[in-house]
Amino acid sequence: MPTPRVEIRYCPKCRWLLRAAWLAQELLTTFEGALGEVALVPAGNGLFQVWLDGELIFSRAEAGRFPEAKELKQLVRDRIAPDKDLGHSDRN
Amino acid sequence: MPTPRVEIRYCPKCRWLLRAAWLAQELLTTFEGALGEVALVPAGNGLFQVWLDGELIFSRAEAGRFPEAKELKQLVRDRIAPDKDLGHSDRN
Repeated sequence: MPTPRVEIRYCPKCRWLLRAAWLAQELLTTFEGALGEVALVPAGNGLFQVWLDGELIFSRAEAGRFPEAKELKQLVRDRIAPDKDLGHSDRN
Repeated sequence: MPTPRVEIRYCPKCRWLLRAAWLAQELLTTFEGALGEVALVPAGNGLFQVWLDGELIFSRAEAGRFPEAKELKQLVRDRIAPDKDLGHSDRN
């Protein structure tokens, strides 16, 4: 299994696959060459979580909202490519 | 790692992420409740392959073309849910 591995766990009953797939593509595009894989993982009711190599980096239940793409990129960047400049995703 | 696991290996330089992500969503929608995960895996030049639990089920290099969604669903169905009727994806 290629690493770093991002896992996006989403609730299929809530129809959150589209969000999950969108964020997967954002990450794979931004971190081309630096991510091993992004897995889309159907999970329990109301769940939307992002994991990086076994660490929970975003939880909808904890945050009370969905992640923004910018925010997720910063969370991933800080862990796998701390020197990477995210351009406009790094302003404010 | 949840199973059954589908892995879509694609060439990012060829800009095949969009196809890979589209097919991932087709599979996750059709096999809701029956697939553990679909992973999008950036891979080597010109590569487009679909793996199911470690078995190569489609290779662009071997087939000389990309997979059709219908075809991929049949390949996955035959292995993880042989009794499942794919509706219009099963005709001709």
